[in-house]
Amino acid sequence: SAQAKSDNFSTQQLTDVEQIKQQALTSDLAWDLVESLTTEVGPRMPGTPGDKAGVAWAVAKFNAMGFDKVWTEPATFPKWIRYSESAAVISPSPQKLHITALGNSISTPKEGIQAEVIEFQTLDELESAPESAAKGKIVFINYQMNRDRDGNGYGPAVQARSRGAVVAAQKGAVGYVMRSVSTAHHRFAHTGGSHYKEGVTKIVSSAISNADADQLHRLVALGEPVTININVQAQSMGEGTSYNVIGEFTGSEFPQEHVLIGGHLDSWDLGTGALDDGAGVAITMAAAKLAHSKGKTKRSIRVVLFAAEEFGLWGAKAYVKANEKNLKHIVAAAESDFGADKIWAIESNVDASALPVVRDIAKAMASLNVEHIGKNTARGGPDLIPFRPFNIPAFRLAQDGTDYFNYHHTADDTLDKIDPEKLRQNVATYAVFAYMAANAKTRILGK
Amino acid sequence: SAQAKSDNFSTQQLTDVEQIKQQALTSDLAWDLVESLTTEVGPRMPGTPGDKAGVAWAVAKFNAMGFDKVWTEPATFPKWIRYSESAAVISPSPQKLHITALGNSISTPKEGIQAEVIEFQTLDELESAPESAAKGKIVFINYQMNRDRDGNGYGPAVQARSRGAVVAAQKGAVGYVMRSVSTAHHRFAHTGGSHYKEGVTKIVSSAISNADADQLHRLVALGEPVTININVQAQSMGEGTSYNVIGEFTGSEFPQEHVLIGGHLDSWDLGTGALDDGAGVAITMAAAKLAHSKGKTKRSIRVVLFAAEEFGLWGAKAYVKANEKNLKHIVAAAESDFGADKIWAIESNVDASALPVVRDIAKAMASLNVEHIGKNTARGGPDLIPFRPFNIPAFRLAQDGTDYFNYHHTADDTLDKIDPEKLRQNVATYAVFAYMAANAKTRILGK
Ligand SMILES: [Zn+2]
Ligand SMILES: [Zn+2]
Ligand SMILES: [Zn+2]
Ligand SMILES: [Zn+2]
Repeated sequence: SAQAKSDNFSTQQLTDVEQIKQQALTSDLAWDLVESLTTEVGPRMPGTPGDKAGVAWAVAKFNAMGFDKVWTEPATFPKWIRYSESAAVISPSPQKLHITALGNSISTPKEGIQAEVIEFQTLDELESAPESAAKGKIVFINYQMNRDRDGNGYGPAVQARSRGAVVAAQKGAVGYVMRSVSTAHHRFAHTGGSHYKEGVTKIVSSAISNADADQLHRLVALGEPVTININVQAQSMGEGTSYNVIGEFTGSEFPQEHVLIGGHLDSWDLGTGALDDGAGVAITMAAAKLAHSKGKTKRSIRVVLFAAEEFGLWGAKAYVKANEKNLKHIVAAAESDFGADKIWAIESNVDASALPVVRDIAKAMASLNVEHIGKNTARGGPDLIPFRPFNIPAFRLAQDGTDYFNYHHTADDTLDKIDPEKLRQNVATYAVFAYMAANAKTRILGK
Repeated sequence: SAQAKSDNFSTQQLTDVEQIKQQALTSDLAWDLVESLTTEVGPRMPGTPGDKAGVAWAVAKFNAMGFDKVWTEPATFPKWIRYSESAAVISPSPQKLHITALGNSISTPKEGIQAEVIEFQTLDELESAPESAAKGKIVFINYQMNRDRDGNGYGPAVQARSRGAVVAAQKGAVGYVMRSVSTAHHRFAHTGGSHYKEGVTKIVSSAISNADADQLHRLVALGEPVTININVQAQSMGEGTSYNVIGEFTGSEFPQEHVLIGGHLDSWDLGTGALDDGAGVAITMAAAKLAHSKGKTKRSIRVVLFAAEEFGLWGAKAYVKANEKNLKHIVAAAESDFGADKIWAIESNVDASALPVVRDIAKAMASLNVEHIGKNTARGGPDLIPFRPFNIPAFRLAQDGTDYFNYHHTADDTLDKIDPEKLRQNVATYAVFAYMAANAKTRILGK
């Protein structure tokens, strides 16, 4: 064996890890899962029939894969439905704009809302504009997100998505449209959560593709008034219910203690939720199965498929609430929710006593081209945000997100965007992670 | 000067060519033209207000650029309008399909047409199916076009677009949908001309994107009936009229003799017709201007912007009819209608006596990385097809079409797909071509 000795793992265990890794690198299991989910279920927006079908799919798959325990836990959320959306330049040169409503947007009147465009380059620029600067107009924020391996361009860009319609309304606007939070050069508009504010008039909240934003910018730059029409038909439907779906391989020695991995089962409605987050669902389900392939692990391996992430982490919040007393039994947690490109790094957030175990895990991932980021301040994916107050041992298995925002939250997030080879590398990494965290001589503790 | 001596061109002329070439390689003229056309006019489907605006735009630009003669010539065509189009899988897993009506398609009933899908891999497979094989069903042809520098994958794939709905109807189908004639991995459906046949029931004729075709194929492969709904609202409107727009720099010695370059001014309605064929319009307008920048050429340089190409070369047919007696005065013809990627080759179709001139022209293009294809059987772009019976001296300035069918005839054919650097190389090549063909000591003759 190529493995060095370790204080935390037996020689047999290190041999098992190598075999599990090799098995993962030739396995089609994750591909089959994400193909099945995105084809046989399709889009899974919280509260829709697709969401319900996704829950049934997950329960059936966990059972078919031989997980020891399979169960669901309810989560409620504010339900919102998209019916239709369209937009067009009315003058000076009539042409369609590729638009999408942002989540939670109100409807326009049936004939749409038609007004002159006023352009701002950033949300800050809009915020510092005089009161009534946008009176009677449609505000267009033209901010282009940066491309970045770690997705660091996303946060700043999302401000205009989350709050843009509120600030625009405060400046007197009758509608709001932004350049998509997207790195693609294609005419797909990017959806995602947006919010209104008590006491501020609700106006339609929408995004156009990068190509359309370029076009609108050029038209505005011509210096003559540019009039557009935005037509969004959507509806808030009160409280909806969905379900976290959980599958567990029970441990042999410390069954309460468990590794927690997973993704979110819901998706936006425009695409089929392949990269976001069918991939994470498939990677972690397959990894758990492979990690369990050498027989029972010492601790349990739990896969949590969170509900209603896209509407605001509602499944994760419900999980934390329902399982609050058991969060201390989590020995390692990681969520896969950043597409399906290769994992390039592992980063931990654990008690110092656990760092030798982390180093052993990282060593076993080295042949997968996973680097060890030593700084021990990892965050663990969006659905682990509600877990943070509980100081669980969190990990980031960092995927390369350079191309993620070409597809994320658009109609173009479909199965063909997943590379089966890269998917296998993800499964191998998660399988190593789950097996080793579940079998380490001493359990990993949070900070 | 780097130029060798030539029997066909003076030293001064060869110096001029070099200067024109350098000027073209730093000129923004073509970019400004295609930006203006695609922004200020936008989509230009024959018979639409955009088409009319395009004609006005071209007349104004030719005049502003100082062409000596600017005129229009009418062309009629069977007008067709697209109102709306949508499709969805109804069962087993409800989800949207990204679809477009093919040109000339009839409408479905208002609620769409809903039926089970029957899949064929090729048009041949459908043709050899038994009578009534598709009775009551929607035929889906799943043929994937090949990617190829010269676009050789297009012709075979277009068969299913042109005739698919007829053959499907002959087998009893109630609707027709095909995999797009496209090389893209994005959810853009590709439109284009299609035809019905006297005596065969007209059924809706449509195409879905590659990603959607993959999905539909996977659903059909599950083995259970797959039901989809196609909703197309479109209308044939009788005869429409548009105009070829022609600009000419008149020659000093043989004004009747002329180089004919150009593109087509119309486009499909889904995108803004940037690659198809705003680029060709801009390249040839700019090249003529640059070729004329050293003063009058011996022969005239004529830029023809053809009307209604997309509906069946109607402008080109009208041009040939109206100018039949003058076609013998064409000393060289080339159409730019294959996007905006670099020109990699020049190929001729001329009388043997003209081959030395062609070699000199090719030599002047060598520094632009344009190869000379010696075989002398060039065809000159779609709008030159109606010229073929007249044996004009035709040229192919062959663009690299590897990526062309990622965008062609889709909503994604927008300005951002044009690389300004590559556009300049096209302008330089066409400028060299126009200048030299217009100034050669003896005129180039056709075969
Ligand atoms: Zn996600
Ligand atoms: Zn998301
Ligand atoms: Zn064309
Ligand atoms: Zn075309």
